[in-house]
Amino acid sequence: MTKIIDLNCDMGESFGAYKLGMDEEVIQLISSANIACGFHAGDPNVMDHTVAMAKEYNVGIGVHIGYPDLLGFGRRDIDISRKDLMNYIIYQIGALEAFCRKHQVQVQHVKAHGSMGNMSFVNRNIADAIVDAVQEVLPTTKLFVLPGTEIHKAAEEKGLSHVLEVFADRAYNRDATLVSRKLPGAVIKDPQEAADNVLRMILDGKAKTIDGEFIDIKADSICVHGDTQGALDIVRHLRRCIEEKGIEIAPVGRWHA
Amino acid sequence: MTKIIDLNCDMGESFGAYKLGMDEEVIQLISSANIACGFHAGDPNVMDHTVAMAKEYNVGIGVHIGYPDLLGFGRRDIDISRKDLMNYIIYQIGALEAFCRKHQVQVQHVKAHGSMGNMSFVNRNIADAIVDAVQEVLPTTKLFVLPGTEIHKAAEEKGLSHVLEVFADRAYNRDATLVSRKLPGAVIKDPQEAADNVLRMILDGKAKTIDGEFIDIKADSICVHGDTQGALDIVRHLRRCIEEKGIEIAPVGRWHA
Amino acid sequence: MTKIIDLNCDMGESFGAYKLGMDEEVIQLISSANIACGFHAGDPNVMDHTVAMAKEYNVGIGVHIGYPDLLGFGRRDIDISRKDLMNYIIYQIGALEAFCRKHQVQVQHVKAHGSMGNMSFVNRNIADAIVDAVQEVLPTTKLFVLPGTEIHKAAEEKGLSHVLEVFADRAYNRDATLVSRKLPGAVIKDPQEAADNVLRMILDGKAKTIDGEFIDIKADSICVHGDTQGALDIVRHLRRCIEEKGIEIAPVGRWHA
Amino acid sequence: MTKIIDLNCDMGESFGAYKLGMDEEVIQLISSANIACGFHAGDPNVMDHTVAMAKEYNVGIGVHIGYPDLLGFGRRDIDISRKDLMNYIIYQIGALEAFCRKHQVQVQHVKAHGSMGNMSFVNRNIADAIVDAVQEVLPTTKLFVLPGTEIHKAAEEKGLSHVLEVFADRAYNRDATLVSRKLPGAVIKDPQEAADNVLRMILDGKAKTIDGEFIDIKADSICVHGDTQGALDIVRHLRRCIEEKGIEIAPVGRWHA
Repeated sequence: MTKIIDLNCDMGESFGAYKLGMDEEVIQLISSANIACGFHAGDPNVMDHTVAMAKEYNVGIGVHIGYPDLLGFGRRDIDISRKDLMNYIIYQIGALEAFCRKHQVQVQHVKAHGSMGNMSFVNRNIADAIVDAVQEVLPTTKLFVLPGTEIHKAAEEKGLSHVLEVFADRAYNRDATLVSRKLPGAVIKDPQEAADNVLRMILDGKAKTIDGEFIDIKADSICVHGDTQGALDIVRHLRRCIEEKGIEIAPVGRWHA
Repeated sequence: MTKIIDLNCDMGESFGAYKLGMDEEVIQLISSANIACGFHAGDPNVMDHTVAMAKEYNVGIGVHIGYPDLLGFGRRDIDISRKDLMNYIIYQIGALEAFCRKHQVQVQHVKAHGSMGNMSFVNRNIADAIVDAVQEVLPTTKLFVLPGTEIHKAAEEKGLSHVLEVFADRAYNRDATLVSRKLPGAVIKDPQEAADNVLRMILDGKAKTIDGEFIDIKADSICVHGDTQGALDIVRHLRRCIEEKGIEIAPVGRWHA
Repeated sequence: MTKIIDLNCDMGESFGAYKLGMDEEVIQLISSANIACGFHAGDPNVMDHTVAMAKEYNVGIGVHIGYPDLLGFGRRDIDISRKDLMNYIIYQIGALEAFCRKHQVQVQHVKAHGSMGNMSFVNRNIADAIVDAVQEVLPTTKLFVLPGTEIHKAAEEKGLSHVLEVFADRAYNRDATLVSRKLPGAVIKDPQEAADNVLRMILDGKAKTIDGEFIDIKADSICVHGDTQGALDIVRHLRRCIEEKGIEIAPVGRWHA
Repeated sequence: MTKIIDLNCDMGESFGAYKLGMDEEVIQLISSANIACGFHAGDPNVMDHTVAMAKEYNVGIGVHIGYPDLLGFGRRDIDISRKDLMNYIIYQIGALEAFCRKHQVQVQHVKAHGSMGNMSFVNRNIADAIVDAVQEVLPTTKLFVLPGTEIHKAAEEKGLSHVLEVFADRAYNRDATLVSRKLPGAVIKDPQEAADNVLRMILDGKAKTIDGEFIDIKADSICVHGDTQGALDIVRHLRRCIEEKGIEIAPVGRWHA
């Protein structure tokens, strides 16, 4: 049986006159796009354009939900109530869906951005609010989760279809959590090392931890970055290595149970 | 045959800690609500609450599209390109729809707020952009239009279902346009005079102009205001007068062709 | 020697079409105004109008610094870096100062609003950033502090002139901290009880704790609220009680060392 | 006597995670910086950093006032009332001044950005509001004006010191106004042609119009752009050509009467 994997990347983060990322290039290399919805990044024009591009390149469309903090790019923790969080999520989902309807495509997945994502790994209240909000308006979508985190558990317990996401360029701890960016070795910058890690996860179901051990890991989608030329080069290399092994790259919505 | 009319009012204009309008009272008096979507007013919590209230009181739900100008409450002209305007409209429609889906109700209509509305009366480019944007994502909805204006013509020519809106508290010119607010007599403050005008429009299909003539007018929905106790009293009086004449008040989506 | 006290209140929290508070009434009852600067509340028009009113009624002008979160009214914790926080404070101080210059008045004090204020009580990093930012651009101003908190200590250690603030309507713990709003009895709603507490603090230097003990407390300024008719009535009663005791009410900048 | 000229460029237009322009390079080539103040672009961190850079390179600091429209980058006309406009300007001036105070430098000039600037050329009400607002809080500063426009007349009549600004890369009409960007030949892309034009303006006091005539023009400051590598190359070439002619480049505040 052919192995299959999804490559996802954040997109549509430009805003007005401000351009961020190399979306036109990266869209051709990935299979799923996490599209900002105007809260932490993005604006209506950018959303429209990004959905159109995703359709053109057969890329799965994700709602990249974030905190309402353009100034902080959604990367700052905000002490948001459950009600606020749920309504912010529902709002963003609806906004992106309207552009999907215009272009006659469907939302494939939802992914939490920045601080909302980080909090969802460790805070069960945040995780629950995200799962509950998604289930209220998009009950059949797929939620991206980091394996073993609170949001993974919440999605499992509440019966929301979810996609296990791994990172090509991040080191893992023994408990399958990501090594904090503040620690040395947390971010993998060598393209070949990133590719080796990814292939090991796809083919062997194993991740090499920062202290050299091997742990079990299951990967449905690999998160990559496309905001610099260097990041783009890593994605190109990764894609080549994956394809050379006969592994198919395809939007998770087309093959994931 | 029983005459029937719709009463619409702007709602959901509160924002965060800021409360605007007497929504809890007015929702019980009207049949259609124009709900702000976070651009000129409103926020996700307010949208959720307002949709829930509209459902509870069987009130038709409208997307109240506006310019992205909270500071100016959407009342300032902004020289917006066709592309920007269309995408702002699509975004707002989607955002409100998500809350409608949560509450298992449908969008009934779309209405342009403030300066966007005023421009749509006189500027065909603006009118076309509004009609085109609505047709792209909500082709079967009803668009509120002021009779005889550019947006009325645009909706007619493009085949978008539309609702003819009249104002209970505004004086009319001979050409059926509204008398400018800057002129004396433009705003009708006497509840009985407002009620007389409305009944004349519903029952006789006539409006009395500011210089005492009578012109033909067709009315599907009457716009009322609920932002002050005085405004609320006018709506109560109007409702009573309408019902005393055996005219039914019902959401335009339930009876309008 | 005549006892003297300052009464301070948050003001200028309206925004665009949104009116908050009863500023026109409350300005006549207080001696210092904490004026929002467009981050958590307020806008340039409101700032201009509020500074003009403060000048007219001889009320001391304070920069009410807050987080950039209009949607949350500055009441949500945001994990803000020291650099961000300092620059947000400097920005807000400058913005208000320009209106003071226009009206030929001086800034009297600085006070942290909402979540920034709460954090400054318990988080020394936040407290230090506030004191440092103020000292960089307004080294001779007075900073409002809650006695015994981190921001009190920071101001003392760094040599920034500060004003000890007490609350008329809040119950105290034995360590002079405020009883959490989540606990019963935290907020005092009886005008006479509030007045008794305040007089005890001014005249005897004592506060009655929630469990009936008396602790030492020093008060330079009493924080009052003017956002409802009820709040306004409390301020009126408080003012009357204070004046009946022959205590002078005056802006802290005019008499505080 | 040595000829002297000022080179000004828009700077500090980045916002949060969004970087715009090549400020670090361009600051070394110019003598005056127009710094955005958080309305059309810029944020408190960017303002702080840009003022610090301007100080380091002895560059004159300008308040680049704009409309409150980050999404439209201040380039969209907004129908703003005189009161709103004046208060927005005062607010922005104050905000930037606070960073100047922190870094112990002075504001040198004020310049209107984007649509506010364009309107100030042709609309006397806008021009008056700008001049009046500046005079209320910065009466001794210098206002950048396009020669012969409404804002030039307003500054002259009201006695506000002003700096005549010319454009290196724009074609002129016979009446000394700029050729509309919509017309062919409006923007000069050849570095040598731009340099020739500028030298002709400085040395001969003449501008070559789009139809080949020569008209009188007086230039105090030349506006250049630094948002792309190409723009930067033009500035470098221009600077070299100016210096080769023995013309001094210096902040207009140091030499302008």
